[in-house]
This record gives sequence, structure tokens and C-alpha cells, in this order.
Amino acid sequence: SKWEYVKGFEQEETLLPSCWVVIRLDGHSFTRFAKDHEFEKPNDIQALALMDYAAQHVMKEFGDIRMAFGESDEMSFILNKASTLYGRRKSKLISLIVSCFTAHYVNSWSSFFPNKQLQHLPIFDGRAVCYPSERTLRDYLCWRQADTHINNQYNTCFWSLVHSGMTGAEAQDTLKHTQADFKNELLFSKFGINYAKLDPRLRKGSIIIRQPKRKAEGEQLEDLGKPMQLDAANHVPSTMPANLKGLEVLHEDIIQEHFWVSRPEMLR
Amino acid sequence: SKWEYVKGFEQEETLLPSCWVVIRLDGHSFTRFAKDHEFEKPNDIQALALMDYAAQHVMKEFGDIRMAFGESDEMSFILNKASTLYGRRKSKLISLIVSCFTAHYVNSWSSFFPNKQLQHLPIFDGRAVCYPSERTLRDYLCWRQADTHINNQYNTCFWSLVHSGMTGAEAQDTLKHTQADFKNELLFSKFGINYAKLDPRLRKGSIIIRQPKRKAEGEQLEDLGKPMQLDAANHVPSTMPANLKGLEVLHEDIIQEHFWVSRPEMLR
Amino acid sequence: SKWEYVKGFEQEETLLPSCWVVIRLDGHSFTRFAKDHEFEKPNDIQALALMDYAAQHVMKEFGDIRMAFGESDEMSFILNKASTLYGRRKSKLISLIVSCFTAHYVNSWSSFFPNKQLQHLPIFDGRAVCYPSERTLRDYLCWRQADTHINNQYNTCFWSLVHSGMTGAEAQDTLKHTQADFKNELLFSKFGINYAKLDPRLRKGSIIIRQPKRKAEGEQLEDLGKPMQLDAANHVPSTMPANLKGLEVLHEDIIQEHFWVSRPEMLR
Amino acid sequence: SKWEYVKGFEQEETLLPSCWVVIRLDGHSFTRFAKDHEFEKPNDIQALALMDYAAQHVMKEFGDIRMAFGESDEMSFILNKASTLYGRRKSKLISLIVSCFTAHYVNSWSSFFPNKQLQHLPIFDGRAVCYPSERTLRDYLCWRQADTHINNQYNTCFWSLVHSGMTGAEAQDTLKHTQADFKNELLFSKFGINYAKLDPRLRKGSIIIRQPKRKAEGEQLEDLGKPMQLDAANHVPSTMPANLKGLEVLHEDIIQEHFWVSRPEMLR
Ligand SMILES: Nc1nc2c(ncn2[C@H]2C[C@H](O)[C@@H](COP(=O)(O)OP(=O)(O)OP(=O)(O)O)O2)c(=O)[nH]1
Ligand SMILES: Nc1nc2c(ncn2[C@H]2C[C@H](O)[C@@H](COP(=O)(O)OP(=O)(O)OP(=O)(O)O)O2)c(=O)[nH]1
Ligand SMILES: Nc1nc2c(ncn2[C@H]2C[C@H](O)[C@@H](COP(=O)(O)OP(=O)(O)OP(=O)(O)O)O2)c(=O)[nH]1
Ligand SMILES: Nc1nc2c(ncn2[C@H]2C[C@H](O)[C@@H](COP(=O)(O)OP(=O)(O)OP(=O)(O)O)O2)c(=O)[nH]1
Ligand SMILES: O=P(O)(O)OP(=O)(O)OP(=O)(O)O
Ligand SMILES: O=P(O)(O)OP(=O)(O)OP(=O)(O)O
Ligand SMILES: O=P(O)(O)OP(=O)(O)OP(=O)(O)O
Ligand SMILES: O=P(O)(O)OP(=O)(O)OP(=O)(O)O
Ligand SMILES: [Mg+2]
Ligand SMILES: [Mg+2]
Ligand SMILES: [Mg+2]
Ligand SMILES: [Mg+2]
Ligand SMILES: [Mg+2]
Ligand SMILES: [Mg+2]
Ligand SMILES: [Mg+2]
Ligand SMILES: [Mg+2]
Ligand SMILES: [Mg+2]
Ligand SMILES: [Mg+2]
Ligand SMILES: [Mg+2]
Ligand SMILES: [Mg+2]
Repeated sequence: SKWEYVKGFEQEETLLPSCWVVIRLDGHSFTRFAKDHEFEKPNDIQALALMDYAAQHVMKEFGDIRMAFGESDEMSFILNKASTLYGRRKSKLISLIVSCFTAHYVNSWSSFFPNKQLQHLPIFDGRAVCYPSERTLRDYLCWRQADTHINNQYNTCFWSLVHSGMTGAEAQDTLKHTQADFKNELLFSKFGINYAKLDPRLRKGSIIIRQPKRKAEGEQLEDLGKPMQLDAANHVPSTMPANLKGLEVLHEDIIQEHFWVSRPEMLR
Repeated sequence: SKWEYVKGFEQEETLLPSCWVVIRLDGHSFTRFAKDHEFEKPNDIQALALMDYAAQHVMKEFGDIRMAFGESDEMSFILNKASTLYGRRKSKLISLIVSCFTAHYVNSWSSFFPNKQLQHLPIFDGRAVCYPSERTLRDYLCWRQADTHINNQYNTCFWSLVHSGMTGAEAQDTLKHTQADFKNELLFSKFGINYAKLDPRLRKGSIIIRQPKRKAEGEQLEDLGKPMQLDAANHVPSTMPANLKGLEVLHEDIIQEHFWVSRPEMLR
Repeated sequence: SKWEYVKGFEQEETLLPSCWVVIRLDGHSFTRFAKDHEFEKPNDIQALALMDYAAQHVMKEFGDIRMAFGESDEMSFILNKASTLYGRRKSKLISLIVSCFTAHYVNSWSSFFPNKQLQHLPIFDGRAVCYPSERTLRDYLCWRQADTHINNQYNTCFWSLVHSGMTGAEAQDTLKHTQADFKNELLFSKFGINYAKLDPRLRKGSIIIRQPKRKAEGEQLEDLGKPMQLDAANHVPSTMPANLKGLEVLHEDIIQEHFWVSRPEMLR
Repeated sequence: SKWEYVKGFEQEETLLPSCWVVIRLDGHSFTRFAKDHEFEKPNDIQALALMDYAAQHVMKEFGDIRMAFGESDEMSFILNKASTLYGRRKSKLISLIVSCFTAHYVNSWSSFFPNKQLQHLPIFDGRAVCYPSERTLRDYLCWRQADTHINNQYNTCFWSLVHSGMTGAEAQDTLKHTQADFKNELLFSKFGINYAKLDPRLRKGSIIIRQPKRKAEGEQLEDLGKPMQLDAANHVPSTMPANLKGLEVLHEDIIQEHFWVSRPEMLR
């Protein structure tokens, strides 16, 4: 038609080839969403498990995603640096991944929170960031995992103080400008909490990876014998369909070398 | 932390100020989705109504959206040219709107299709396009509405032929290279269908606008007396919460002047 | 060759269609360049004339430039909003125009400054900015012309004070936080300068336009009779080749309506 | 001023951190420029030397450029991957480098071509491309050097045939679809030219590097003893100021490892 010229106003950006692409989603106004849905403080295990579950579905849908890292209301997906998915079109990738994640989060809400009605719907923002090297990508993941730790340590202290009778303002004051050591000590001496023993999900966040396939004939990888990851320990309702086989949720340290050394194929 | 430098790799694009912004969503692989959910052919009124309903929720959430236009599996949102929402950050706007739309589509599915289970989840892509002038914006809308007409006319012919016994290939052959006149004639003479009398939703698509507010004290706008738009005629289940008041769904011609002349505030 | 894949890393941006494009050049470190070449203070008429002369050559080379505006060490070129020059590729347009301007500035230096050797070479930065409407484009030009006025008024005061014996710091202090009225009064009462009578080039900057062609047969436009613009009054050495016919340098007000009303074809 | 809002329309793009940045310039319409200035065919040594000379000045001006590669009418500058020059703003970097190169090309024309007047001025386009890794950057350089070889081999054959009496069309036909071996054989058997013995500048292009500085006290690098590069052999007029000390022009193979192995600091 004579109006088709308007298509020419589309200016599609593509992501630089040969870079690792991070698509990071973050819950929109989840401070409010958490309050309205009475998320447990400081961490709601079911809420975190639902995030991971939605992320697994995204990884099932988009095979070029190598791994994901989640914490709080955010999820980072790492796209293979050689991926040519949708010609690396930025808007396409962001929108499809955000849409897929949102769809699953909403759709599975009632399975994870059978006794809570959605008061209003959750929505997520998204962005894409290129990392040119393994080093910068891993530093990105370090940044997020360090953030998980810092926030969780602070929040654990904060809510322990509040539950012990302080006001929010008092708890905030107590913690202002304190170091990690002080906080660990506080948790231990005052509340008997050994921080290092807390659920690793809270301290390390969630790493979602694909279970490696058999390497070669006859040679079965150890992992394959393992039971499905989405069991009760992962806080997934027992009625959940087990169609996410092969997508493992870990709560390990990814700052240090070990995780990467033992998975040389991850960033190849 | 020492890893924070990685935040510097984010390269956020902003949309040119003073341009009308179109955010267009389109269902991902809806050919497949329509088949799997047995959408009526060529048009499934419930499916279209669900699109409109989700769009209304998006407009409720984002006040800077002036109007929306929907057809088939797509929806275009027109952002006020003066909007500074999220600093006009492209990825933010696309992702939040896609996410909001998806959330409502999934959440309201069972209200619109009480007897159909979701077989797999719908996802939508999204893009943002700037139009520098009222003329180019209106040409954009003409382009979409003309597309609605062309597709619907073709599809109505195609499925009439198929329902009358032709194979798909035969129907395609019959319609190849034919003009609008021929198709109208075919529908009328062979199937007794007066194209101009078809449901305007199918011929014109859906225009969603905000009902104008009272102009000044004492002076009540005619529109205000009208009944809520989301009634049975709009194919919305009667149990739907009526909280979308003020968001009207029209199926009018927006190519010609009349629509715009009678709404001088729309693109101001 | 097998290395050709690297061409795929080029990410060319195009300028939004249907927008007026401003390509603005600015002399790199001209504070230094002006000092090293003993430019007259606050304004060196020859230096300004050389800027205009180089700009005329750029306009001769690139027919899609509608007009230019220059002041100090900067020059803005306005590209026709319908231009499709180089597919509106941003880097192409910026680089070619900057290169062309620089080439002519360097090449004509000795004609404008027959007695000054270039001590080091002048270089210019460049940028492209889109303006979606006639209003925003004209506001851009207002911004630049108002800047010309503000700077020139300040500089005229400053150097008058300095030439009358003040130190730079004292002159600065005297002028700090003063309004336009005060400055005009100062110039008049202290130095007998009627600001409004100063060379309009300094107060208004340079507007370079194409002389309109004959409108219709028999009807000759007045302008055509005029003598070439590049005469002594424009500070161009008499030996300059007169091949820039049709490119007129004006020093008029472009903030008010008159300039535009009398040239309805300029922004069409 | 009230018009300052227009500055908000500037949309500056920055180059992804931690990537090698190539700024490539290319002569605009040099087919024409070479003809008008009677460049020798297929290669004009003085023209190539002038390109290199201008590039050396650019490298002198912008310390973050690690090396340059030139051939024909083009020049690629490699910006240090850690460079934060001008905040890695794309338009700034392209425009300043193009401007600087053009200024020197024009300014030095008469030294390289004392007997040729400039008929019209040379202009150059420019672009910036990011390469995320040493591998992709080196592949870029391989691509350009392979191109140098392919073009030179073809052109040497072509012009030998033409000089021996063929028309251009006949020479083109003779060479169509032929391989490297055939062309080498042709040069040798028909024209007594041993391709491998041709001036390496023509076969390999020009690599411009910075001479490494002394590493540590007492330990003098071998290179430092070498004579200045800009001597007669480099076709630079003897009156040229020798202020480009430390910028070496090489014509070596950069496709193979040797060049890089012997300069481990180059891409660090
Ligand atoms: N109680 C509780 N709150 C949580 C949990 N996970 C996340 N949240 C809340 C805590 C934070 O206020 C918020 C996440 O921080 P953000 O920086 O993303 O802020 P928010 O989403 O409010 O705003 P945004 O739209 O992202 O800028 O979500 C949880 O498991 N339990
Ligand atoms: N039967 C039926 N199909 C519909 C209806 N609305 C949309 N569709 C189908 C028809 C088209 O095949 C498809 C929309 O066309 P698209 O060009 O968006 O293609 P599709 O979504 O398959 O691929 P895409 O991922 O958008 O490139 O959706 C409906 O009401 N009834
Ligand atoms: N004396 C004198 N100086 C002039 C004349 N025209 C321009 N300049 C000087 C005054 C300013 O210091 C400078 C222009 O200001 P800019 O803001 O462009 O600064 P500059 O070029 O130094 O730095 P930049 O690289 O553009 O950020 O050039 C002139 O006609 N006479
Ligand atoms: N005779 C002669 N010609 C040369 C020499 N160096 C470059 N040229 C000419 C040969 C080519 O026609 C041209 C370079 O090819 P390009 O692909 O850059 O084409 P051109 O500059 O004409 O167009 P462009 O504006 O870059 O698209 O310059 C030389 O040393 N001698
Ligand atoms: O949302 P914040 O404050 O955690 O930080 P950010 O996500 O980098 O900010 P934005 O969402 O505005 O990009
Ligand atoms: O999806 P199409 O084929 O209708 O056309 P498009 O949406 O412009 O194509 P794309 O989704 O690839 O941008
Ligand atoms: O150069 P300035 O300070 O006049 O202002 P600017 O040109 O907008 O700044 P920049 O050259 O850094 O874009
Ligand atoms: O100019 P060409 O044809 O050698 O190839 P290119 O430089 O990649 O093309 P363009 O100058 O149009 O970017
Ligand atoms: Mg955020
Ligand atoms: Mg959030
Ligand atoms: Mg968050
Ligand atoms: Mg599409
Ligand atoms: Mg679709
Ligand atoms: Mg569609
Ligand atoms: Mg500047
Ligand atoms: Mg300057
Ligand atoms: Mg300036
Ligand atoms: Mg080119
Ligand atoms: Mg060229
Ligand atoms: Mg070339």
C-alpha cells in the first residue's frame, strides 16, 4: 500500500557479533509487589523458586541461552556469544525473553502460591548488554553474585533486628557503615545464626545450567544418574509437570575458579 | 564492588524527543498458536477480544499511551510525543509494555476461553518506532488498518472457498492476483456475503482510546452518558471486573479525516 | 576471503527519516588555535570569513544541505528532511562533511591569512542531530543565534574592559551576573559603542543559503541581479575564485518570523 | 536560553568498552581523484606515501592509537581497547580522526606532489567498528592485507596487459575467473615480473606502529638504533620536517604469527 513507506522508520539495532549477551530482567516495582503478596522477609523461598521455574522455561524455549543467574526479582540470561538468534536483533531478543518469562511467571503463580490470589499482575523490565570477553562476562556474574550476598547479609541482619523488636529506622542505624565481619558476628552472637549455614539459595542466588549431554559413546557422564532437580527441595509443588529435565538449578559459588574449571564447555 | 565496572557496558538508547512513539507487539508464531488452540477461521472473535482486553490493561498501566490499534495477533501502542516516561529509554519501554501485555493475556485467557486449556504459553515480540510528525504517525495507522482490511478480505474469501469444498491450494489459485472488486463480488455472488456488512471489528481492527474527561465544570461531554464499553457485545465474559472504565474500544475508519477531526485532542 | 566475516561487525546507524538533520562542526581546541594564530579579540573577521567560505564549499559539494549557520569556531549544516543522501547513514554524513570542511579550511588558509603560517593544523569535531519538526529545527537555530549574541556581547564588554586597562579577572568580576541591559549600557557609556550598530556578522552569525532559482519563465527573481556575495565586504581576498555563485552569506535575524516568512521554500 | 532544550535531541552513541576499535577512512570517489591528479597506475608511490604521512600525524595527535594499516585510498586506525578517549563517543572519534587526516593530506599535498596542483580537494569518509577480541581484530587486519594483495596482483596484471597493447576490456576478459597462480605465472612469463619481488609496500600495504620505548634502565631495545623511517626510501621529500620520530612505517606480513609474536606489547 502507499503507506508502506512508514516501515522504513524502523531502526533495528543488532548486538555486536562475537560478544556474550546478557539479557537481564528485573521485576517492576517489586517492593510493592512483594508487600501486596505478603512475600516472606527478607526472602520468600517460593517467590525465588517461581523465578527459577520461569527462567527454566525460558531456557527451554531459547536453546541459545547457555545459563541463567537469578536473585531477588531479577534474572540474567547469558546468550551464547556465537548465537545468531533473530540476527541478534536487540528488541526482538529482549521482548521475546521478557514475554516468555512473564507468561510463565503468571501462569505458574497458582502452583507456587496455591493460597494466594494475584492482587495485580507482575511485570518485568528487560535490557541487553554485550560483554566482549569471558573475563568481562564472568565479572558481570561476579557482580551479581556479590550483590546477592551483600543484600542478603544486610537483609538478614535487618529483619532479625526488626523481628527482635527494633523499628526499621533503628535497625538501619545499627547497620549503617558496618562491614561484613560485624554483620556475621551480629547474626551469630545475637541471633545464633551461622551465616555460612544459611540456605545457599539465599547466599549464592540461583544458577541455571543445562546438564551436559553424553560426551561420547559408552562414556556416561556422572550427572546423568542424578535425580531430577525440580523436586520438593526446590520448592516446586509436586504436581508440577517434570518437563524441564536437563535444566539444573544450582546455588554454588561462581566467583571463584572451581565452578568454571569443572565446566570447561560452559563458555566455549 | 570491584566488579561494578561491568555496569558501564550497558548502552541505553533513548527515543528521539518530540516524536510519536509506536510500540508494536506481535504474537510469536501465532500461526501455530492459533492452530493449537483451535482459533476460529479466519477470525476468532474471542481471541481478538482478549487482545483488546490485554491492551486496555496496558493503557490503564501506562498513562502516556494515547491510543492503541490492534488486529490479528498484533497491537500498536501510541505513546504521546511529549512523553518522558522512563526517560524514553527504548528497552525499558518495550520490555515493560510487552511484559504487561503478556501478563494480562495469560491471566485472562481462561475468562475468554473458559473451555480451552492453554496448550503452551503465548509470547509476543515488541519493537519501538519513532514517527516525527502527525502525518507520518497517521500514515502508520493507515498502513495497519489497510493491512487489516486486505488480510481480512483475503481470508474471508479463502475460508469461504475452503468451506465450500475447495482445497487450500485451489482457493489460493482462485484468489491469486485478484483485486478488491473481484473479491467483494465473489463473496456476494457465491456466498451471499456483503463484505461491507461484516463485523466492523474484522474489517477495521480495534482502536482503543481514552474517553475524554469533562472539559470544564458544568459542561458534561456527551460520551460520559454512554454505557461501559466492555459489555457482551465486546465478547468479554460477564464476570469480568469492570475496572477499565474510560477505555473505549472502537472499530471505525481511521484512514479518513472524520475520526481525527472529531477528536482534535487525540494527537495534541 | 575467509576473513570477510569481520565486515559483519560494522553497525551502521541511520538517521530517522523525515527529520531535519543538523550536522554541527566545532573547532577542536580553538581556544589554543586562536591564540597560536593570533586571532583578533574578541572576533577575528578573517577567521570567521574563512569558516563561511569553507562552509560554502561544503554546500556546493552536498546539494541536500538547505542552509548553514556559523559562529565562532562552529558551523551547523541543515540537511533537507527528505534527503536520502548515503541512505542517511550517520557516520558517512558526519565524516564526509567534516572532511570536506577541513580540506577547504586548510586549503584556503593562506588566502585568508596571507601573512600567517599555519603553526599546527586545525581540526574539527562533528555530530549529527535529528529534529522532527520545523519548530524544533527553528528552535535549534534560535539557540545557536542567541548563543552568538550572548557570547559576542559578553566578549565585546570583556575585551573593552581589558583593553581599557583591567586585568582579565577584574573584567570577569565586573561582568559576573550582569544582564544584557547592563552590558549594552556599559558599552555605550564607557566605550561609546552602540552595540546594535556593531558588524551584524558578529551579532547575528552567518547564515548561508542558496539563492533561489528563477521561479517561472519570464519572472526573474530580484536576487539574481545582485553582485556576487563573496566580495571585499565579505573579507574574501580578491584573488578568490568566484565559483560559489548562488551561495549567499547573510547576517540577519533568524529568530523572528520575518526571515522565514520571506523564504517559504526554505524548510519545505 | 529557552531554546536550550534542543540540546536534548543529541543522541550520542558510545563504543562498547573493552573492544578494539577500528576507525577506517576511505577516500571519497578516489577513482575520480586519482584520474584527475594523474596518479600512476596501478600504484602511485607518492600518493601512498602521502597517505602514510597523514596517518603518522594522526597517530602523533591521538596517543591511544596503537597502530594503523593503509592501502590504496584507505587507512585503518586501531584504538587501544582500554582507551577512554572522549568517553569512546563514536561521532567524536570518527570526526576528529577524519578531520585530522584530511587536514594533513591537504596540507602536505604540495610536498609530495610539488609539480601537481590540487584540481579539487580530497575528502574521506570514516566509520568506527568494534572488535571484541584479539582474534577478531587480527582477522580484520588479515582481511585488509589480503585485500591489498588481491587488488595489487590483479591490478599489476591488468595494467601490464594494457601497457602491452590490450584494451581494458580484453585485459579484463583475460583475467576473469583466474587464480593467483595463473596471475603470477602470467606476470613472470609474459612480463618478466617476479611478483614476490615487487615493492613490499604494494604487496603488503603500510603498517604504522610506534617504536617501543626503552623498557628499563640500561636495557636498550634494538629498534632504537635504527635510522628515522621517513627517509628517501619512504618517498618523503627531503625537506619534510622530521617530527614524526618514533612512528615507523613497515610493509610486512601481518597475517602470519611472526609479526605479532615479536611484538607482544602491541595488542596488550
Ligand atoms: N519480602 C521480600 N521482598 C523481596 C523478595 N525478593 C525481592 N523483593 C523485593 C525487595 C526489593 O524491594 C525489591 C527488589 O528491588 P528492586 O531494586 O528491583 O526494586 P523494585 O523492584 O521495587 O523497583 P524497580 O522497578 O526494579 O526499579 O523486591 C523476597 O523474596 N521477599
Ligand atoms: N485462525 C485464526 N488465526 C489467527 C487469528 N489471528 C491471528 N491468527 C494467525 C494467522 C496468522 O498465521 C498469524 C499472524 O501472522 P504473523 O505474520 O504474525 O505470523 P506468526 O505469528 O505465525 O509468526 P511471527 O512469529 O509473528 O513471525 O496468526 C484468528 O483470529 N484466527
Ligand atoms: N580571539 C578569537 N578567538 C576565537 C574566535 N573564534 C573562536 N575563538 C575561540 C574562542 C573560544 O575559546 C573557542 C571556541 O570555544 P569552544 O567552546 O569551541 O572551545 P574550544 O574550541 O577551545 O574547545 P573544544 O575542543 O571545542 O571543546 O575559540 C575569534 O574570532 N577570535
Ligand atoms: N591510479 C591509481 N589509482 C588509485 C591509487 N590508489 C587508489 N586508487 C584508486 C583506485 C580505485 O578506483 C579507488 C579506490 O577504490 P574505492 O573502492 O575506495 O573507490 P572510490 O574511492 O572511487 O569510491 P568510494 O567513494 O570510496 O566508494 O582509488 C593509486 O595509487 N593509483
Ligand atoms: O533498578 P536499579 O536501581 O537496581 O538499577 P538499574 O536497574 O541499573 O536502574 P534502571 O532500572 O533505571 O536501569
Ligand atoms: O513478522 P512479519 O513478517 O509480519 O514482518 P515484520 O514483523 O516486519 O518482520 P520481523 O518480525 O522480522 O521484524
Ligand atoms: O563543547 P562544548 O563545551 O561547547 O559543548 P558540547 O559541544 O555540547 O560538548 P561536547 O563537545 O563534549 O559534545
Ligand atoms: O566502499 P566499498 O564499495 O569498498 O565498500 P564499503 O566501504 O564497505 O561500502 P560503503 O562505503 O558504502 O560502506
Ligand atoms: Mg532497575
Ligand atoms: Mg525490581
Ligand atoms: Mg531488582
Ligand atoms: Mg514480525
Ligand atoms: Mg505473529
Ligand atoms: Mg502478526
Ligand atoms: Mg564541543
Ligand atoms: Mg571548539
Ligand atoms: Mg565552539
Ligand atoms: Mg566505501
Ligand atoms: Mg574510496
Ligand atoms: Mg578504497
